[in-house]
Amino acid sequence: MSRPTNRRQDNHKIDWHLPSISSSASAHHMSRELFVLTYGALVAQLCKDYEKDEDVNKYLERMGYNIGIRLIEDFLAHSAVRKCRSYSETVDVIAQIAFKMYLGITPGVSCSNTSENEFFLILDKNPLVDFVEELPAGRSSLCYCNLLCGVIRGALEMVHLAAEVTFVQDSLKGDDMTEIGITFTKKLEDKKHRRNK
Amino acid sequence: MSRPTNRRQDNHKIDWHLPSISSSASAHHMSRELFVLTYGALVAQLCKDYEKDEDVNKYLERMGYNIGIRLIEDFLAHSAVRKCRSYSETVDVIAQIAFKMYLGITPGVSCSNTSENEFFLILDKNPLVDFVEELPAGRSSLCYCNLLCGVIRGALEMVHLAAEVTFVQDSLKGDDMTEIGITFTKKLEDKKHRRNK
Repeated sequence: MSRPTNRRQDNHKIDWHLPSISSSASAHHMSRELFVLTYGALVAQLCKDYEKDEDVNKYLERMGYNIGIRLIEDFLAHSAVRKCRSYSETVDVIAQIAFKMYLGITPGVSCSNTSENEFFLILDKNPLVDFVEELPAGRSSLCYCNLLCGVIRGALEMVHLAAEVTFVQDSLKGDDMTEIGITFTKKLEDKKHRRNK
Repeated sequence: MSRPTNRRQDNHKIDWHLPSISSSASAHHMSRELFVLTYGALVAQLCKDYEKDEDVNKYLERMGYNIGIRLIEDFLAHSAVRKCRSYSETVDVIAQIAFKMYLGITPGVSCSNTSENEFFLILDKNPLVDFVEELPAGRSSLCYCNLLCGVIRGALEMVHLAAEVTFVQDSLKGDDMTEIGITFTKKLEDKKHRRNK
């Protein structure tokens, strides 16, 4: 076998400064089936490690948080999204740009009738459960996709938005659809106000 | 908040019978950064669970194997690849179609000078380590991407090809490039021969 041994490895870190979503998208796209199956392996490992569903959920959320605080940098560099002026605009960006970019789907968005800082992402299709028929036996409280909640929370925190992100409905638990609730706990306006003081 | 509660969830399992790579690709593409970070979380979890690098490597390989035996079905349905007639053709399909489809890269292929059943995939860029600067401290024997070896082994096994798949070089360990060795341990010709007897 002949192998080139003197070739230097090019710097192959992600180019964080790609100009627009289209060029980056073509450069970094992949089929999501491998991701979906790898995510399944991760959840299975955590179920092996932690007896209680709540612990698995907590761990998935924390992992997602750690991913979100890194992914936001990639997102801002690749999406060319500017600063959002309202919670509503922020949630639209999450649904229409971030979900599309990272999971290839665009959830619907609805807002709470009673609270202006509460929004819902409605996923008719949840790609993360493509290969999952049902929750594992004895795991009825498992939030299988809780990583997503953590990713959203972590990413929002990095743009100075504190939020609680949880699954409101989950098709894996027999609900008609999958729905992620996002409740902003600090107002953008409050922050601006404090900054101007 | 108004939420439709009576809407039935559409069947959103992957359409296994999509006709060609192009249509399926557009339907299931995602940005790979989320995958890369999630994979990192999986490896970190296994490093937490298993003290010895060899155990983590073994576990990653076994997880990959379990993924490969499922992913092959997706691959065959989406790629429209027909039966390969030689090891060389099989390795070309892995490099040029499977890697492109699932990781967005096309490794180079080389073959052994001494053994006709030994091939090498040469990855100038390894997307799985995009966010990884170096191996964690005290983890110098970790095969960070060993899941890939398992995926290849599992997928090959499902098309009746037994193979040993290992990392020969790894840029994370200071090598100039990343190289995956595939050694077929059963000959297609042998199988045919036996079948005709």
